[in-house]
Amino acid sequence: MTRITLKSLCTAASLLAAGVFNTQAQEDLVKYVDPMIGTAKMGHTYPGATVPFGSVQLSPDTDTIPYGVNGRYNPDVYKYCAGYQYEDSTIVGFSHTHFSGTGHSDLGDFLVMPTVGKLQLNPGTETDPDSGYRSRFSHDEENAEAGYYSVNLKDYGVKAELTATTRVGVHQYTFPESEEAHIILDLKAGIYNYDEKNVWTIVRVENDSTITGYRQTSGWARTRKVYFAMTFSKAFKSYGQEKQKGQVYRGFWGRFDQNHNFPQMAGNDLRLYFDFDTEENEAIQVKMALSPVSTAGALNNMEAEVPGWDFDAVKQQAQETWNKELQKVTVETLEESDKVNLYTAMYHAFLGPTVYMDVDGKYMGLDRNVHEADGFTNYTSFSLWDTYRALHPLFNVLQPQRNQDMVQSMMVHQEQSVHHMLPIWSHYANENWCMIGYHSASVIADAIVKGNADFDQNAALDACIQTARTRYFDGIGEYIDRGYVPEDKDGASVSKTLEYAYDDWAIAQAAKKLGRNDIYDEFIERSTYWKNVYDKSIGFMRPKLSDGTFKKEFDELNTHGQGFIEGNSWNYSLYVPHDPSGMIELMGGKEKFSTHLDSLFTMELPDKYFENTEDISREGIIGNYVHGNEPSHHVAYLYNWTDDAYKAQDKIRMILDQKYMTGSDGLSGNDDFGQMSAWYLFSSLGFYPVAPGSVDYALGSPAVKEAMLNLDNGNTFEIEAKNQSSKNVYVRKVELNGKELTKPFITHDQVMNGGRLTFYMSRKPNKNLYN
Amino acid sequence: MTRITLKSLCTAASLLAAGVFNTQAQEDLVKYVDPMIGTAKMGHTYPGATVPFGSVQLSPDTDTIPYGVNGRYNPDVYKYCAGYQYEDSTIVGFSHTHFSGTGHSDLGDFLVMPTVGKLQLNPGTETDPDSGYRSRFSHDEENAEAGYYSVNLKDYGVKAELTATTRVGVHQYTFPESEEAHIILDLKAGIYNYDEKNVWTIVRVENDSTITGYRQTSGWARTRKVYFAMTFSKAFKSYGQEKQKGQVYRGFWGRFDQNHNFPQMAGNDLRLYFDFDTEENEAIQVKMALSPVSTAGALNNMEAEVPGWDFDAVKQQAQETWNKELQKVTVETLEESDKVNLYTAMYHAFLGPTVYMDVDGKYMGLDRNVHEADGFTNYTSFSLWDTYRALHPLFNVLQPQRNQDMVQSMMVHQEQSVHHMLPIWSHYANENWCMIGYHSASVIADAIVKGNADFDQNAALDACIQTARTRYFDGIGEYIDRGYVPEDKDGASVSKTLEYAYDDWAIAQAAKKLGRNDIYDEFIERSTYWKNVYDKSIGFMRPKLSDGTFKKEFDELNTHGQGFIEGNSWNYSLYVPHDPSGMIELMGGKEKFSTHLDSLFTMELPDKYFENTEDISREGIIGNYVHGNEPSHHVAYLYNWTDDAYKAQDKIRMILDQKYMTGSDGLSGNDDFGQMSAWYLFSSLGFYPVAPGSVDYALGSPAVKEAMLNLDNGNTFEIEAKNQSSKNVYVRKVELNGKELTKPFITHDQVMNGGRLTFYMSRKPNKNLYN
Repeated sequence: MTRITLKSLCTAASLLAAGVFNTQAQEDLVKYVDPMIGTAKMGHTYPGATVPFGSVQLSPDTDTIPYGVNGRYNPDVYKYCAGYQYEDSTIVGFSHTHFSGTGHSDLGDFLVMPTVGKLQLNPGTETDPDSGYRSRFSHDEENAEAGYYSVNLKDYGVKAELTATTRVGVHQYTFPESEEAHIILDLKAGIYNYDEKNVWTIVRVENDSTITGYRQTSGWARTRKVYFAMTFSKAFKSYGQEKQKGQVYRGFWGRFDQNHNFPQMAGNDLRLYFDFDTEENEAIQVKMALSPVSTAGALNNMEAEVPGWDFDAVKQQAQETWNKELQKVTVETLEESDKVNLYTAMYHAFLGPTVYMDVDGKYMGLDRNVHEADGFTNYTSFSLWDTYRALHPLFNVLQPQRNQDMVQSMMVHQEQSVHHMLPIWSHYANENWCMIGYHSASVIADAIVKGNADFDQNAALDACIQTARTRYFDGIGEYIDRGYVPEDKDGASVSKTLEYAYDDWAIAQAAKKLGRNDIYDEFIERSTYWKNVYDKSIGFMRPKLSDGTFKKEFDELNTHGQGFIEGNSWNYSLYVPHDPSGMIELMGGKEKFSTHLDSLFTMELPDKYFENTEDISREGIIGNYVHGNEPSHHVAYLYNWTDDAYKAQDKIRMILDQKYMTGSDGLSGNDDFGQMSAWYLFSSLGFYPVAPGSVDYALGSPAVKEAMLNLDNGNTFEIEAKNQSSKNVYVRKVELNGKELTKPFITHDQVMNGGRLTFYMSRKPNKNLYN
Repeated sequence: MTRITLKSLCTAASLLAAGVFNTQAQEDLVKYVDPMIGTAKMGHTYPGATVPFGSVQLSPDTDTIPYGVNGRYNPDVYKYCAGYQYEDSTIVGFSHTHFSGTGHSDLGDFLVMPTVGKLQLNPGTETDPDSGYRSRFSHDEENAEAGYYSVNLKDYGVKAELTATTRVGVHQYTFPESEEAHIILDLKAGIYNYDEKNVWTIVRVENDSTITGYRQTSGWARTRKVYFAMTFSKAFKSYGQEKQKGQVYRGFWGRFDQNHNFPQMAGNDLRLYFDFDTEENEAIQVKMALSPVSTAGALNNMEAEVPGWDFDAVKQQAQETWNKELQKVTVETLEESDKVNLYTAMYHAFLGPTVYMDVDGKYMGLDRNVHEADGFTNYTSFSLWDTYRALHPLFNVLQPQRNQDMVQSMMVHQEQSVHHMLPIWSHYANENWCMIGYHSASVIADAIVKGNADFDQNAALDACIQTARTRYFDGIGEYIDRGYVPEDKDGASVSKTLEYAYDDWAIAQAAKKLGRNDIYDEFIERSTYWKNVYDKSIGFMRPKLSDGTFKKEFDELNTHGQGFIEGNSWNYSLYVPHDPSGMIELMGGKEKFSTHLDSLFTMELPDKYFENTEDISREGIIGNYVHGNEPSHHVAYLYNWTDDAYKAQDKIRMILDQKYMTGSDGLSGNDDFGQMSAWYLFSSLGFYPVAPGSVDYALGSPAVKEAMLNLDNGNTFEIEAKNQSSKNVYVRKVELNGKELTKPFITHDQVMNGGRLTFYMSRKPNKNLYN
């Protein structure tokens, strides 16, 4: 990799030089992306076609499990967050919206399925696929790439291919000869579907090859509406819908045959079909454009992004777009499979938040009014409890403009919120209130502190402050008054207290940067409240009651009913990312803490403690350390605050090795919209943002041999791991731009200004490193 | 009435002169309007506050009867088309949208009710008012005027007053002293309510005195959405909602108390309350602005129309607006009560179609996209089967600009229709397909033929043609192919054939005027198809089957299952308004026909023939002539095509006398959005548009002594009935501008050019008149 070495001599490379370099060096990185990674078990990723941060995620659904059966929750629905499970043998159809890696879902809008032969309008079951329109398939005849997916639908002899632009999904179905070829549009289908999730759906058949409509649901998003425009490359010869209850125009039964060739359909149960005659190997293309605001917007998006009928050109454009994004990090790795993991991680990291506006800038606001994004790209689907940790910090390095736009998207959310609150977990002009904390504040503070903040910073800070002062939200009033959330008033009280304290610290850092001293004082004080839930007598964080006493019965291994959410006290007690030194001191000092941390990774966590916790599974655990869920993502790096930084190094390499693998079951837990992947990217490169809102990155142990960050500002930041091998997981010394580092930290500016970070790797730990 | 006589000398009065005249003469005509007329029995009018053609109809609802009980239709719901029945003793609340006089309904949006004492959030029942929030009231303490309504709510000692602008309803509630004063907002309430009619409702409590939201229903309109913004003149001290199933944010039960002081509510069952402390006689005002497109639009409408808090000023403005409209006809009558009937008829005639756009011109299109009205005012609620007959012709005289705007509203409806059809019965961006025919064509043709057509006339004609060629609509294909609708293919086949033939004639007239000869030929041919359903052997129109034979069993008195809709063959057989002479000839000539017509008015129609027909009741019948429903509205004037025009005169005076009275039960049938009232106005003035699409008016027998039409073009057209009395119902001779008329017709131009029509009345018929 001579070119990197040569390049490194010029840390302030000009844009031109960088451009020339990239052109010369550009490798096809798309080939390393395997969208199948994470599609088995708990990864919750989808294998279908999408572009970076695209509004459309066009992907096969292998089942559409209802949320409830006879009024009771169906645990299997959790498996189908992304609509696809690798172990399944049938495909129901291809729908246009999917979250990537989340632990809850929604979406699955507008399921399309080509069939041949007798028309069936129900999906059927996996055990009896012939009972419905679904088809058997084999992974041998399936191909998933960044921006492209194909599969042979065995039951029909139809080859299905998918690709996408930001707002348009493009299908190509290659049929056998038939007088009974159908394309089904199931508006009833959806992910995480309730019986009455469809509040209303409408379809208009505008002409013999264009239809428009919308789907309005109340599920995870209380009120969610997606508009569409759909066109076929060939005119259909007839069409219709499944007869459904309540579909008729009331009072005028029988005036129309509403089920056949009647261009206006509405209800909450629509399943439509479109009939074609096909010749052998005839390809019919379908374009489905989405819009958050109107069918007119959807039609406009289609015209702007995919005016013609060239599937291959759209595919090529999608893959070129991906390649361009992936070029932001070029690497040399020990194994080819490491490149697969790394570029797939980048791919997953760049799937969301997703663009949420029409090509003309119009989007649906949280106030249900149509707004126009003024000077920014509006994004949605903020899985913030996950993504504030490493994904948004990663964006501040690799996607600075998008991260600024995301902040602006959060700010308009706050302006439009009747609660005047920043997003908690928001999607599609809704707040679903999932998980805890107000981590938008972390994202905003991180951007401000790191200087990636071309927005009204004081207004952004004000939005954080107003959010953090919303007394009726989830125990905040009690937290403000008492310095902790009392467990008898509000569940998961310790998790909330700890996360509020961190968010408050982040707010304080932004206030400091902006010279808002009164705000700094208020929130730096609040940032110490984590101490109020620490029980020195047992050495763990522990729920406190409103009378000031700690909860009596307490099990620090149990994740349920102990004052925590999606984690036990063992893991969550380490959640003081903004003051590890203070925490370590309170927990008995560096030496004791280091040993304590060791035991986290080595102790045995009996199955009973996580078998009923959706987000934690055996695959994601090392000892009692839970990597498959987020609260501990910073934990391995805490050794940097002891005198045993070397212990972080082997832990990180162990996690990278064991918890990220190729293959459909390669992910050890929900990818959580890129947070798991962002951890992988940072850690592979040798550094990690333990406390977003700080400019510091903690150093770990890189897994790459060499890497270059091709930054948007034209600079390059290079990482080299000398003497790298799978066994040389320890760092003997580190140099930044040739100068040895005495502390295990580098700053954001040091990265963004460009330069070279050189790790000298070793099989044996250097116990004196940084000390 | 000297001023009229003086004025009449100058038929081409200048605008200035007219202005001066009006100013001098302007009488308070609002005092003659009694909105209570028609509120009992079958009138289906509402007594509340509205302005001419206003979007808001703020009116008391005395019950909210569900459409169905245990899945079965509740016939009582029909009584409550306008929400109010005079005989009732309780008021449930005040809602903001009402149709006037229709035979089917919808609406009843946003019911508001002030209460005092223990909070109750269900409406209760009339038999046990204390079981809910409704209140007893007395007509003695109730006052209904044009633009103003007040009532004392006995149960609470609250005086309720209502007024309105075009888009804003204004309430004033004068409370007693209380610490438990409430204002309830019931979003579940509605007119013609189904169990699941509310598809979705949303409320945001924006601050301590402003709330916004919408109500989305699927009832008569399949998909209907009304947005609102509501403000209180005084901040509420607390608020909340009735607990309802499915209201919580799924997956996060218990994180919020969503029932008290939580500013975001959604579901389909919302009942809200707002609490106040009140002093004795403290008045709290409420403004409710509506919008078809957004809550932002509603707020904007409120700001534009009622920025402040001056109830009396809004009331005064509403009444001045009414007075201005009523001045278009000034009269001298025999009795004071005739003025009440006449101005109330004008009031009812000017209630709809209603304005359907925001102050900035934005409206919801039939394609569910937001459009902006370009150079016209967009209207909705077209009850065309009724209103094409006399109401739109009346508008061509008294509301020419509005009628042109209504035509343009129909044209954009057609452009936005996926069927490419003009409205049949449309309301709120929906087509409800109620009743038969395509009478938009009549309205458009009438405007074109009469020269009140400042719109793209050829485009309007094209819209008519496309509508009339929609083969899948209601038997049109069969009608085109066979020359009639076969009863075995499509019910009410005779009514449809007759009305299509008339509409086709109207299209032909417009085509002729525009020089479109091919279209004229096509449609003038179709206009003769009425002959195909005439059975000469019995002398009645009779359903024909697809094999060309007439239906065997047939009862020309029965309104059910005989091939007619809302009428029997006796009445409907006379429905050839565009060719009375041809019809009379086919029916045996003038003499025979005249006698035939006599018997219609004198024969006895047994109860069994109409007791199950919603739109026909004993009150509306004279013999077998049904005035309380529309198909026979032209019938009395048919004598003009015989040699016995005098017979029309006493019939018309009889109908005016017997079927239009003061008092709540004064109307003899549904007012049908002003059609019944338009008949009254034309007939009182002495002329009637038997066949809209023709420039001719048939002369009858005026009931006024003198009248002046103050036309928008600055001309005045005067009618004088010399020797007028209640017994002098016959016309001895008629002069137009001093010249005796030899035929019982005048033309539209003769009216619009201004002039004087003098009837010489007599107690005895002049059998030679016009012969």
